[in-house]
Amino acid sequence: MAKEKKSKNKETLKNPKGTRDWFGDDVVLLRAIRRQIETVFEKYRAQELDTPVFELQEVLKGKYGEDSKLIYDLQDQGGELLSLRYDMTVPFARWLAMNPDMETSKRYAIGKVYRRDQPAISKGRMREFWQCDIDFAGETAPMFNDSEIISCVVKIFEALEWTGYTIKLNDRRILDGLFEVCGVPEDKLRTISSAVDKLDKLPWEEVKKEMVEQKGLDESVADKIRTYVTRKGGKELLEELQKDEALMNNPKAKKGIEEMELLMRYLQRWKALDKISFDLSLARGLDYYTGVIYEVVTEGSAGVKAPAPATVEDSTPPMPPVASTESASSDAPVTSNGSTNGVPRRPKEKKKASEDEDRSDDPTVGVGSVAAGGRYDNLVERFRPGANMPCVGVSFGIDRIIAITKARMAKGERFSYIKPNRTDAYIMAFGGSGFSGMFEERIDILAALREAGLRAETFSKQKAKLQKQFQLADRAAAPVAVILGEDEQARGEVKVKQMGLPDGHPEKDGVLVKAEELVAKVQAVLEKLDK
Amino acid sequence: MAKEKKSKNKETLKNPKGTRDWFGDDVVLLRAIRRQIETVFEKYRAQELDTPVFELQEVLKGKYGEDSKLIYDLQDQGGELLSLRYDMTVPFARWLAMNPDMETSKRYAIGKVYRRDQPAISKGRMREFWQCDIDFAGETAPMFNDSEIISCVVKIFEALEWTGYTIKLNDRRILDGLFEVCGVPEDKLRTISSAVDKLDKLPWEEVKKEMVEQKGLDESVADKIRTYVTRKGGKELLEELQKDEALMNNPKAKKGIEEMELLMRYLQRWKALDKISFDLSLARGLDYYTGVIYEVVTEGSAGVKAPAPATVEDSTPPMPPVASTESASSDAPVTSNGSTNGVPRRPKEKKKASEDEDRSDDPTVGVGSVAAGGRYDNLVERFRPGANMPCVGVSFGIDRIIAITKARMAKGERFSYIKPNRTDAYIMAFGGSGFSGMFEERIDILAALREAGLRAETFSKQKAKLQKQFQLADRAAAPVAVILGEDEQARGEVKVKQMGLPDGHPEKDGVLVKAEELVAKVQAVLEKLDK
Repeated sequence: MAKEKKSKNKETLKNPKGTRDWFGDDVVLLRAIRRQIETVFEKYRAQELDTPVFELQEVLKGKYGEDSKLIYDLQDQGGELLSLRYDMTVPFARWLAMNPDMETSKRYAIGKVYRRDQPAISKGRMREFWQCDIDFAGETAPMFNDSEIISCVVKIFEALEWTGYTIKLNDRRILDGLFEVCGVPEDKLRTISSAVDKLDKLPWEEVKKEMVEQKGLDESVADKIRTYVTRKGGKELLEELQKDEALMNNPKAKKGIEEMELLMRYLQRWKALDKISFDLSLARGLDYYTGVIYEVVTEGSAGVKAPAPATVEDSTPPMPPVASTESASSDAPVTSNGSTNGVPRRPKEKKKASEDEDRSDDPTVGVGSVAAGGRYDNLVERFRPGANMPCVGVSFGIDRIIAITKARMAKGERFSYIKPNRTDAYIMAFGGSGFSGMFEERIDILAALREAGLRAETFSKQKAKLQKQFQLADRAAAPVAVILGEDEQARGEVKVKQMGLPDGHPEKDGVLVKAEELVAKVQAVLEKLDK
Repeated sequence: MAKEKKSKNKETLKNPKGTRDWFGDDVVLLRAIRRQIETVFEKYRAQELDTPVFELQEVLKGKYGEDSKLIYDLQDQGGELLSLRYDMTVPFARWLAMNPDMETSKRYAIGKVYRRDQPAISKGRMREFWQCDIDFAGETAPMFNDSEIISCVVKIFEALEWTGYTIKLNDRRILDGLFEVCGVPEDKLRTISSAVDKLDKLPWEEVKKEMVEQKGLDESVADKIRTYVTRKGGKELLEELQKDEALMNNPKAKKGIEEMELLMRYLQRWKALDKISFDLSLARGLDYYTGVIYEVVTEGSAGVKAPAPATVEDSTPPMPPVASTESASSDAPVTSNGSTNGVPRRPKEKKKASEDEDRSDDPTVGVGSVAAGGRYDNLVERFRPGANMPCVGVSFGIDRIIAITKARMAKGERFSYIKPNRTDAYIMAFGGSGFSGMFEERIDILAALREAGLRAETFSKQKAKLQKQFQLADRAAAPVAVILGEDEQARGEVKVKQMGLPDGHPEKDGVLVKAEELVAKVQAVLEKLDK
């Protein structure tokens, strides 16, 4: 009976598929990274906006194209129809529309977003994941906000102590212009754009095949496109394009190229230009972009095979087998009950999920990218017709940034802003038979150390073997032990022991101090250690 | 046509009922309070746990009794059946059950929870609200964890610089024991307990009436109960009870009284005893409590009539009328479409919602309380039969704490940890006709100031009238203006002006400094100001 109950419970003892619990080192990392990012955002004078986790269904409706099917809906329990937020961009636009008196806005948001996608845990694709956005809204001098957002991206990765990343940069207007110049028919612009977007994963020949065979493009048009979209570089590429008469005669391309020049000038001022790769193959999936687009790729994001903190198995070490098995089966169909209401694979994901492919139409994070964004000038108007509120922004994929940081730490890299979650001092009590455990004395010392701002701990039982106490202190990574004994207590003394001193060190076994000098002594040891 | 479109959009331009957007001063407050709380939690060596916003429906099922109807379910879109979390306690117990190797745990959690309740915005009762929990799990010496949690509550309110609050304290075992001694039949224990819990809102005569007339209790039994539950105090009340032979002969009451003595001894050590009111009328709604229970009430929580930051209207000042009207109609029925699936009023809430009554069976926040909790020793076992994982914890109602703090600030109280969200320096440019706006020079200065760690800003247009620039600097609360001019620029100089200097002050109009000395000069002005 008890056994049957247990096995019944075991089945439900898990978190929902595609989600994870954050704790331990991962939470320390999450908070450290979050704090670094927020400090940069504050220097840029962005203000936090925290919107509800759900929105009216109508607010999200028609904003994500094909991906709308990935939205989590809430059950109709009477009253409003609600959905979980899919990103931070649409709630920001909704909020801007609700505040028509605002001329400009610099806002940031850090929170979780929800996508009823096929989880691919090894690639860090979760159904609930952390995202961090910064967006600037309002009319400004051309490319000023764009350049400031990109400089902010550079500052974020500087604050995260990352090197070896590239900001791929392009402009929708240049892309559309060059397609027109090459002879792509108006109605094929978006679909050809999405084919070009795959050039970072597929060789040209395959992309061409898709254009010609699947999408019915003239082969000669495809060949012309090739002469453009295989080019990337910096200012020199821009100069080449400026000499391209055909391109400069196309109004869209001309405008895009002119503003790209302005952008690069500003980026040089921001000392951000050397991080840029002007890449004519970058297209980005989302329809709503209207100008500059960008995506941050990093050496690390390709190199990390199993992003540890983003996997459910890794994050929950002592988890019963049933829980981890279900959670880890990332390629199992969503609907185990044969419902036709499951998540359909998107067309471009028809291949086996085990291939190293990622979703390139993800509005947040592109192929192997850790951040992505662009200019979207018409979204607010969809909520408030007539609104003139052009926007530009970027989303950081926090889960992925953490996964890569963790993988780099595992290889020995160190990050100055990630501090161990240390217990400063561990209080022990030691005595013979009949020993009380000195419970109340330990409380006094705990209270005094915490009052002095220290992070202190003791064992929570009346008595424990000294060895067990040292184990607990060790697990708490405490550099200092405070050891109470009845004899010492009688003399008004207590022992302070710095952990890990070498054999033969004069203070190896600790030093006795007067009870009233304890706090100062512990602080002195910690200060010495922190130097 | 355009007009029709607009009015159609207007209807949906709102956030979901009972939710709000957090921004501006409220976010500053939220973060300041959150950071204070987290610092205390870290001293107590609690580790953060961040669980998904939804859980499997089975996980939440049967954990909240009557309140289960307030749980938000997700739509069945194929796959798992999910619900939004109702509190942090059940997800913690689920996580503990999934980690059977853990002997003890000290965890904290800060996040939003969801209750499909009737919103009462003026009372800060939202459908999505911030909650902050700390819970200790695992077997310890009797009352050690209980005393440490209560001392943590004291330290939190100390860190928040609150005075004038009381921690009401009782024990379920004492309460059940005294009901038994008075002659309450076993099957009426819980219902009589819930009647007693109303004594902080209703006079004794009404509570008695409920017991006798509605619940069929003997009048003599009710009168005996009165002799106990109208008593509150400190150690002296405990001593009175210890002399009460009838009570001490009841095993439950005896155990509870003995442990209450121990708890008070420990609380004295923690210097927390003077915040305690041992209150025999405190019962708390939730069934799962098994020992000590407590609730923090504050003078402020009764005094605050309209908790500003918790209202949707106040937090979104320039909101279109339609949005605020719907959001503010807190007493409108949940189901506007006549669905029978709406939220039923709970029996004890049959009165008009406009009365100043609050839900006393709220597991988080009781009557006018800002924090509440207790010991629950059997919850983990419901997820993992055989588990021996006794728990004790407390939840803080962050929204309400913010509302009260804000109201106190409005009355002139100051809190040292709440720093204004200041822009350190505002960059301006000033010139005559044909003036370029010195765009790129401003970027240089912005970049240099931010590089030095300062929070700097400029206006984002090419040119603006000086008056407009001063307005923007003023709105950014910037104490320093950096003013660029073409003549000064030609001499390699820039003007630094401390804002708000009195007329006649020698530096009223600013001082010219060499461009390379600018950052140091701005820092010097700020340092002088911060002293």
